[in-house]
Amino acid sequence: MGYGGIRFMKGYKKPTVSIIGASGYSGAELTKILLRHPSVKLEKLYAHTQTGKNVRDVYPYLDTDAVYESFDGNLETDIYFLALPHGEALSIVPKLTNEGKTVVDLSGDFRLKSPEEHAAFYSGNKKPGSFLTYGLPELFHDDIKTAEAISNPGCYATSIILGIAPLVKKTLQDVLITNVSCTSISGLSGAGKSGKVELSFSEMSGNIRAYKAARHQHTPEILQALDTSTLQPDFGFTFTPMIAPLVRGIYSVLTIQLDRHISAADLDEHYRMYYRSAPFVRVQKSMPEIQHVVHTNFCDIHVANSADGGTAVIVTAIDNLVKGAAGQAVQNMNIMLGYDETRGLL
Amino acid sequence: MGYGGIRFMKGYKKPTVSIIGASGYSGAELTKILLRHPSVKLEKLYAHTQTGKNVRDVYPYLDTDAVYESFDGNLETDIYFLALPHGEALSIVPKLTNEGKTVVDLSGDFRLKSPEEHAAFYSGNKKPGSFLTYGLPELFHDDIKTAEAISNPGCYATSIILGIAPLVKKTLQDVLITNVSCTSISGLSGAGKSGKVELSFSEMSGNIRAYKAARHQHTPEILQALDTSTLQPDFGFTFTPMIAPLVRGIYSVLTIQLDRHISAADLDEHYRMYYRSAPFVRVQKSMPEIQHVVHTNFCDIHVANSADGGTAVIVTAIDNLVKGAAGQAVQNMNIMLGYDETRGLL
Amino acid sequence: MGYGGIRFMKGYKKPTVSIIGASGYSGAELTKILLRHPSVKLEKLYAHTQTGKNVRDVYPYLDTDAVYESFDGNLETDIYFLALPHGEALSIVPKLTNEGKTVVDLSGDFRLKSPEEHAAFYSGNKKPGSFLTYGLPELFHDDIKTAEAISNPGCYATSIILGIAPLVKKTLQDVLITNVSCTSISGLSGAGKSGKVELSFSEMSGNIRAYKAARHQHTPEILQALDTSTLQPDFGFTFTPMIAPLVRGIYSVLTIQLDRHISAADLDEHYRMYYRSAPFVRVQKSMPEIQHVVHTNFCDIHVANSADGGTAVIVTAIDNLVKGAAGQAVQNMNIMLGYDETRGLL
Amino acid sequence: MGYGGIRFMKGYKKPTVSIIGASGYSGAELTKILLRHPSVKLEKLYAHTQTGKNVRDVYPYLDTDAVYESFDGNLETDIYFLALPHGEALSIVPKLTNEGKTVVDLSGDFRLKSPEEHAAFYSGNKKPGSFLTYGLPELFHDDIKTAEAISNPGCYATSIILGIAPLVKKTLQDVLITNVSCTSISGLSGAGKSGKVELSFSEMSGNIRAYKAARHQHTPEILQALDTSTLQPDFGFTFTPMIAPLVRGIYSVLTIQLDRHISAADLDEHYRMYYRSAPFVRVQKSMPEIQHVVHTNFCDIHVANSADGGTAVIVTAIDNLVKGAAGQAVQNMNIMLGYDETRGLL
Repeated sequence: MGYGGIRFMKGYKKPTVSIIGASGYSGAELTKILLRHPSVKLEKLYAHTQTGKNVRDVYPYLDTDAVYESFDGNLETDIYFLALPHGEALSIVPKLTNEGKTVVDLSGDFRLKSPEEHAAFYSGNKKPGSFLTYGLPELFHDDIKTAEAISNPGCYATSIILGIAPLVKKTLQDVLITNVSCTSISGLSGAGKSGKVELSFSEMSGNIRAYKAARHQHTPEILQALDTSTLQPDFGFTFTPMIAPLVRGIYSVLTIQLDRHISAADLDEHYRMYYRSAPFVRVQKSMPEIQHVVHTNFCDIHVANSADGGTAVIVTAIDNLVKGAAGQAVQNMNIMLGYDETRGLL
Repeated sequence: MGYGGIRFMKGYKKPTVSIIGASGYSGAELTKILLRHPSVKLEKLYAHTQTGKNVRDVYPYLDTDAVYESFDGNLETDIYFLALPHGEALSIVPKLTNEGKTVVDLSGDFRLKSPEEHAAFYSGNKKPGSFLTYGLPELFHDDIKTAEAISNPGCYATSIILGIAPLVKKTLQDVLITNVSCTSISGLSGAGKSGKVELSFSEMSGNIRAYKAARHQHTPEILQALDTSTLQPDFGFTFTPMIAPLVRGIYSVLTIQLDRHISAADLDEHYRMYYRSAPFVRVQKSMPEIQHVVHTNFCDIHVANSADGGTAVIVTAIDNLVKGAAGQAVQNMNIMLGYDETRGLL
Repeated sequence: MGYGGIRFMKGYKKPTVSIIGASGYSGAELTKILLRHPSVKLEKLYAHTQTGKNVRDVYPYLDTDAVYESFDGNLETDIYFLALPHGEALSIVPKLTNEGKTVVDLSGDFRLKSPEEHAAFYSGNKKPGSFLTYGLPELFHDDIKTAEAISNPGCYATSIILGIAPLVKKTLQDVLITNVSCTSISGLSGAGKSGKVELSFSEMSGNIRAYKAARHQHTPEILQALDTSTLQPDFGFTFTPMIAPLVRGIYSVLTIQLDRHISAADLDEHYRMYYRSAPFVRVQKSMPEIQHVVHTNFCDIHVANSADGGTAVIVTAIDNLVKGAAGQAVQNMNIMLGYDETRGLL
Repeated sequence: MGYGGIRFMKGYKKPTVSIIGASGYSGAELTKILLRHPSVKLEKLYAHTQTGKNVRDVYPYLDTDAVYESFDGNLETDIYFLALPHGEALSIVPKLTNEGKTVVDLSGDFRLKSPEEHAAFYSGNKKPGSFLTYGLPELFHDDIKTAEAISNPGCYATSIILGIAPLVKKTLQDVLITNVSCTSISGLSGAGKSGKVELSFSEMSGNIRAYKAARHQHTPEILQALDTSTLQPDFGFTFTPMIAPLVRGIYSVLTIQLDRHISAADLDEHYRMYYRSAPFVRVQKSMPEIQHVVHTNFCDIHVANSADGGTAVIVTAIDNLVKGAAGQAVQNMNIMLGYDETRGLL
């Protein structure tokens, strides 16, 4: 049973939840999931820009009479999800943890342990006072269970770490990975609810655009989670993201050089074993498709390799707003509260 | 002046052209370009499945009174483009070349020199009697100039070879490339005018699907064009294609490991020099986008690298039906006929 | 309490359900809804073309271990949904009703009372032995409650009837409607899971196509449901459907000529009153959008009018696979079984 | 020969052209067409927000070394196209016509003859000093020929007027039209190059939204062009536009009540006769599709009717940026200069 669970399950009423930053795409997805969650009660929806509006008027598919409120610092509920732009959670999270609240922060503010990396990849001066437990349940389930506050992983990072971890975290015939090249395609909801011209339908229909080639801020997050210090010294990792004309989903192709030849069958079996207890990872015989995971918390993975067996090609698909954000955040909350990991997510 | 040019320019009338396989997407794009070409006369449009139909009824944007005909073996025109399914050009091309026709074949039938590779990646038994000159003008301009028959490159192959060639074909500070990982995203017109359920709008909207990971038939074509026998023995190359919800375009991300560190500025300058005489390659300061090249014969290339300079990330964009098929075919014809390479293509 | 409800609620176990024609888009949507329905147990999924396949392999988002079976005529469950191509339910429904089964047929086979109209708009010779209760709950709730078998309305018909009914079925200041022009745009899932070239992504991206202008088979269905015999003799009704590049949704614009001038406020109030007890109709202040109703059983309606008040413009939006098919079918089942109309649908 | 033609063709050099408002979507389309036009020379590209930028950097598909400039009031060229937001042409056009320039204004500033209608549908106070010749060549060819300045029609208006005119402007068996209901679907480029959230890809993918139901500013423009004062007093006209997830194109469905019954064949023949000299109107046997007209100056029209012949359903398709804006503007220029109407447009 998780830390939070001990606390909440002694009483008889459902723990209460608030979302700070509730009107963006991740906030709306959190709202949708938490409204249906059988074991928590969603109470406050804080949203600066939409204060005073009915939630239903902004997102008509959300079945609630709630009204967006401005966050006033009153801490009335038990659990807080933060879905704020990067930088804005830095000052709020400590206040919440000081009051003993259970917290899941969806921003990048508390993901990187290294202050130098944080400064290099996020806005310079402002730094987190402390790192929070990294909420990727498939790798860090036990840490999450006892944590009070969680830093929810980035969407690209989730799709990439889950594709590589079985070859890094567990031995397969002593194979070492020497080089990983990742390209990921993101749906446009990943850029947030935004009015930029370059994200307009007219500009993005029929279009593809890469950005931050080899320099994206999820790179240090991925390497930190994989703990690549355990790998051979000349291990290389390169990640390039792209946006394409779809709303939801992240599709990652990971080309992994191996220092010895492995059969596709052995690779596949290794991945199945590694994830045999992970309810949201599905190792698939056929190629993942975004449409198979959209609106779900699943990460689909397919394992292929080169004809000579020296290269693994791992393909993963998630919904960026679910397993890449709100779904995983609730999965973390479930674990912290001692609930079944899948509650409210199937 | 090209071989064909000598022949045709002595006379006073425009050379005549036919398309065999004119009713597919590549055939229609060829028709569109050749109807506007100032220096050839499009005469016959052969299309088995559409025989008897007005071209205008099948493709209303084509401004012609022509009618699709069944190919009867009569060779009345000077130049033949073949845009047939793989395997169907094998028996036709020799008849055309025997009659001294100028030929551009858009299929994969005559691309691979190695019979073993042809058998492995294309339909087994049938083999080409001979390899044709590989029609990638940016690399093989002189060969094309004197050729009578050309094998037009594959669409993925074009986008990838143009992205790698400057690092393989010309020395940059003695740098050697040790490993290349390619992922390419193709628009759905690349699959042809097809009635497969998995290519329907309902299945592909909002969807992405990789296929033939590390096993696509353009892999040997790329390696052959790059002549990787000149590279270091343990050179690795992996290519994985994907389809995404757009109609036209190929977007390729090439992650290239280098054996020494090179600055982005040096890489960029090297690419600009390498393509300084190539009218259809644009080395761009900003990231390519499909919308910048669609309906053009341009290949846009952007050169980036990792922070440590040890990895180059080359991003290329083409229109699969133009630079990846019909446009490049006409570019080849222009060179063979001694015309300016860009005639009818700007 | 509905007929079925009497029967089922005497016992203590959940009624069991089968779907005949479970592998198309409507069948898959039915499966999704029924798997989550708290008060029935989904048992058999019959699907001719997919017999023997795991449901999960065909639709990975469906969380079930079920296998598609061939319908063998054994009638083991209490309730049957038929999601078959038009014509195929004609012989099956009588067998089911003879055995006392509760039936919802999603095809057009039992919708038209007039044999002449059935022959004219559906395949000629085959005719239904009898008409079934028309399952549009907002108009025929009481009939549905006591019915054993229901003919589920067409998707266009649902979106149009709900937009017109308040002006036909209930008096508003004695206004009569003299003419109705409807245009509806359907998402491509409405054409079924199909491999037609003209429904491919390459043909439909960026495209729109009207069809059956003024001749669509939902026209007599709409007029029958409105019972336009009560209207003035020269009442005119014209309906033209279109397909556009979206997967789900029907968007209908109904331009309605009135014989006297009515204010927008009066119209709006009249619609709100008419639907005040309909849990799935939302009369909205702002224009409906497909994205507001997709994946829900709601029909959003907005009421506008011309500056002079002589014309009403009613705009409606539904999800064609939910309120236009599977959701409405389950809504009908709920009513027949005496459940709350919304059970399993919110 | 047109007015301008007399002036220009006496000399020996091509007339010169400038575009004021060159960096929006209509301005870019004008640039593309005029760069290829054989009989004018494009010189100045004025664009306030992009001043100083290379045209090629903003629109890489435009093959020009031009740089966007700020309009300084110097009038160096012979012809001016204005592609400005509504209201901004009001003060510029008089200056141009005073200097004897040939002008095509693409805004709505000079379209409406009635000051009351202008005030009601466009921004209140500012009014045009005078109405300009309405540049719909299929109806007003002779007026355009002798005009110095043209007001280019709205995109919706073009698609609708061309669909109705044959029944209003020319007698067909004495039939009178009593009522017209129009719904049009526009691609999103019609909203301009815009950064509004509601036009983002994430909001508009899979979405449809009507607006200004029965109140759009093209309504008076359409009625003025049709000169409906000639129609019977109780003639009714209602127009509702929608946006859908495509970039280019306007698709209009016109449901027209007739006071007597006409066969489809007679209607079709009447339309063919009416447009027999119009090079850009194609009366088609099959249903128009956006993909058939996109990137062309054609208006495709299909004529259908109800089973009883009392209602005509006319369906039209254009490219909003070509026949609905830039292409039609150049068509008008061609006529004014005495060129062939189609020059540079096929």
